[in-house]
Amino acid sequence: MEEEGLKPEAINVAREPVKLNEEEHVGLIRAISMYRSLYTAAAIEASGSKAINGAYTIIFAGDKALTYSLFSANKLPIPKTTFAMDEEAAMKAYAEMGFPVVDKPPVGSWGRLVSLIKSWNEAMIVAEHRAAMSSSPMKVHIIQEYVERPQNRDIRCFVIGEECLGCIYRIPRKGEWRSNVALGANVEKVNECLDELCELSLKASKVLKGEVISIDIFETRDGFVLNEANGVPEFKGFMKATGVNVPKVIAQYVRETVKR
Amino acid sequence: MEEEGLKPEAINVAREPVKLNEEEHVGLIRAISMYRSLYTAAAIEASGSKAINGAYTIIFAGDKALTYSLFSANKLPIPKTTFAMDEEAAMKAYAEMGFPVVDKPPVGSWGRLVSLIKSWNEAMIVAEHRAAMSSSPMKVHIIQEYVERPQNRDIRCFVIGEECLGCIYRIPRKGEWRSNVALGANVEKVNECLDELCELSLKASKVLKGEVISIDIFETRDGFVLNEANGVPEFKGFMKATGVNVPKVIAQYVRETVKR
Amino acid sequence: MEEEGLKPEAINVAREPVKLNEEEHVGLIRAISMYRSLYTAAAIEASGSKAINGAYTIIFAGDKALTYSLFSANKLPIPKTTFAMDEEAAMKAYAEMGFPVVDKPPVGSWGRLVSLIKSWNEAMIVAEHRAAMSSSPMKVHIIQEYVERPQNRDIRCFVIGEECLGCIYRIPRKGEWRSNVALGANVEKVNECLDELCELSLKASKVLKGEVISIDIFETRDGFVLNEANGVPEFKGFMKATGVNVPKVIAQYVRETVKR
Amino acid sequence: MEEEGLKPEAINVAREPVKLNEEEHVGLIRAISMYRSLYTAAAIEASGSKAINGAYTIIFAGDKALTYSLFSANKLPIPKTTFAMDEEAAMKAYAEMGFPVVDKPPVGSWGRLVSLIKSWNEAMIVAEHRAAMSSSPMKVHIIQEYVERPQNRDIRCFVIGEECLGCIYRIPRKGEWRSNVALGANVEKVNECLDELCELSLKASKVLKGEVISIDIFETRDGFVLNEANGVPEFKGFMKATGVNVPKVIAQYVRETVKR
Repeated sequence: MEEEGLKPEAINVAREPVKLNEEEHVGLIRAISMYRSLYTAAAIEASGSKAINGAYTIIFAGDKALTYSLFSANKLPIPKTTFAMDEEAAMKAYAEMGFPVVDKPPVGSWGRLVSLIKSWNEAMIVAEHRAAMSSSPMKVHIIQEYVERPQNRDIRCFVIGEECLGCIYRIPRKGEWRSNVALGANVEKVNECLDELCELSLKASKVLKGEVISIDIFETRDGFVLNEANGVPEFKGFMKATGVNVPKVIAQYVRETVKR
Repeated sequence: MEEEGLKPEAINVAREPVKLNEEEHVGLIRAISMYRSLYTAAAIEASGSKAINGAYTIIFAGDKALTYSLFSANKLPIPKTTFAMDEEAAMKAYAEMGFPVVDKPPVGSWGRLVSLIKSWNEAMIVAEHRAAMSSSPMKVHIIQEYVERPQNRDIRCFVIGEECLGCIYRIPRKGEWRSNVALGANVEKVNECLDELCELSLKASKVLKGEVISIDIFETRDGFVLNEANGVPEFKGFMKATGVNVPKVIAQYVRETVKR
Repeated sequence: MEEEGLKPEAINVAREPVKLNEEEHVGLIRAISMYRSLYTAAAIEASGSKAINGAYTIIFAGDKALTYSLFSANKLPIPKTTFAMDEEAAMKAYAEMGFPVVDKPPVGSWGRLVSLIKSWNEAMIVAEHRAAMSSSPMKVHIIQEYVERPQNRDIRCFVIGEECLGCIYRIPRKGEWRSNVALGANVEKVNECLDELCELSLKASKVLKGEVISIDIFETRDGFVLNEANGVPEFKGFMKATGVNVPKVIAQYVRETVKR
Repeated sequence: MEEEGLKPEAINVAREPVKLNEEEHVGLIRAISMYRSLYTAAAIEASGSKAINGAYTIIFAGDKALTYSLFSANKLPIPKTTFAMDEEAAMKAYAEMGFPVVDKPPVGSWGRLVSLIKSWNEAMIVAEHRAAMSSSPMKVHIIQEYVERPQNRDIRCFVIGEECLGCIYRIPRKGEWRSNVALGANVEKVNECLDELCELSLKASKVLKGEVISIDIFETRDGFVLNEANGVPEFKGFMKATGVNVPKVIAQYVRETVKR
């Protein structure tokens, strides 16, 4: 930030209250908790200042049900998806879709609770456990066809402003089907189809009004489909695989935003 | 609905899954749970169909922190407000604002957990209990000046589409400072300042992209300030006090929407 | 009760406080919630009065980990069992025990969250979901060998005081491996091995200091093993299958207790 | 431990499963979490081995409602106490007892959620927040008269086996009424009435079958009353104030136990 001529001030929002109607300049949101990020962005925007990302992006990217809805409403490709608001509805959805299916709650990070369901026994385990959780969004099921991937990996692209910084493969560790780096996945730079992937990512980012955002994509037999987005993205794995200096690009983007 | 020539179909979303990409017509959202309403609206919108209200309205009205942020960013009057993401930040915010203050979590209905804090003892009780709650949004504090009201009541206006149906006073029962009907408040039709109240409510509704929405307003020495909004509003008390046939107006609004 | 010459007074403990040091006579505990039953018994015992069952029985029967511990410490037969306090320990326990295994939390009723784990995928689903639950006991795993049963059923015996009222088979409904009546199981009177079953049940009840208690038993190739106990037992299914008038026997037991 | 000729093995129960029916020697329970301590003790006892403290002590001392019940049933002095199982019962209990009262949930450490209620506003705040918590024991209220203490402090005595190691005053920091060291309290050695305090502590420990246990006591105008017990006690503050080498005494106690 300082290299870009900015004077950043770090605020630990767990310790400091965030006033509405304060004079702010530009707030770059980096809280790990989705909710802390969301409400910090909301507080900054309350005064007419700019948060990167804004509250709209953080909630619509942070809640996977809202992400899928936005993508689908804007004719962007997603896996076949059903929502079930409770245990009984989930069991009916499994019956209709058949196995395998993927089931995940709307909110959560690092692949946690994303479940691959291959049998009725697994379906019952997931439905009962989620019904027993106390948080309301955890009771809700996003149920999706399991996307057959030609290769065991997914793709993450990084978008800052209107620029696509590139994409990486995330390859699950042995014994794990999910490609989250937090679950031990390896990363590799993507060199093929970059234009197509970047174009899709930019469309996805636009729909979410994203400014600093990562977009997750599946390869399927019928082309690319969007999976998730992250409005407060981590970028260690991306930097390692691509060599792109992400903090520098973010700082440049912030500087341009401040100027405006 | 049927009187308006519509063919409604009631769906209990607790029991039936809601598919994305289904052909829908118009979905009127009436789930009691904010999250069920939200995700049902999102599923309907995924197919390009219309939900009343839409997911945007339900989440931005259903989450009070987002409501205040939108109102304030659009220069609409709100009480002096601070957000605190955790216990420690909350204690600092109380110290800065002094007592009495009002503290509430972003999500919740019927006035539950909306606390009037008049002393450090109360502040500690609220801060400790909220930190001990397991749901992330419950750990977050919206801390506000306690608005001195010339009379012990607040105002609720009802907006459908671009029409303001009127307003009611909500008068807390004895021994209770909150004016929620669920907490025993009485209702009375508002006859004064209706134009001003309706104008403010319509602006508030517009910012939230509301279609069937109620807006809560405080009277203060310096004029009206917006308090909350409800994107899945109840209307029994409103009908009782005003005589307006709310379901009929909603049905008419739905019919016009279907036509478009 | 009245037929037995008693003058019962029903108290809804959700609505009425329970004072310690009140003069009580004998309190028969029938709250559905294990915790409400426990604390009501504790309040009654505080004054030197008698609760049926007592707090000791309710907590040691209501918490399955404590039940298994007591049974095993007293040389009564139980399935091979391991406790795991967290996700990581659970994964190690699964690896050591191999599949299939049964996993359940210490507290819970009606078979909820009792999971049959047959693969690593299921193991991960259970471990992640339980780690994500906010209640501390829910994070704890009771992991047990899956008991091969010659027939697909378990046995429930009913003990009042030092009398065994008999036993029933509970036969899971189709598609369900658990034999809980709440999960649709059928009941049938047991006629074979009654002496042996009653003897085991009386021993189990004694270890738990039970007075009105049900004991669940598995048939295995190597004889009977104890599974669970219930210190606030329901008896509809038992009455239906055996014709025993359980409330009458309870009333008689209470009357004798009052006399003493 | 090694100085006492023992060969201790530390087990992190969060990472390692604890088998029932394992050959154990003696298990000294030191998990911070009450539930982890409880289930580890239960696992050790399942094989007929000895846990210090045993599961009985950990649950009856770890659950304040069970502690008060046992003390009172054994005619040991406690503050005037009522249990309320839910919000409505709590409000009635407050009305009967008048203010100030102390309200706390059965389970919890370091004084968290122990609330001093001086008004109806505070009563409503506590009752609503506790009803909104998802954990069942948290919904339960232990409501007690506020004990007027001649001096602003309480007393903690330490008992190992049948030996009382002494007592300390815990003096709340300024602005805090609770005397928990975790809340900033200071500690001081008790020199007066030691015999009486130790006698009461030993009785309390005996009722709880405690072996390594701390007992909290209030001074009142009418003599000492028991407040709480801790079955997995911390002893830093006690060592600092008294100079007693608590780990050494514990090691000696374990050695003697092993011998038996």
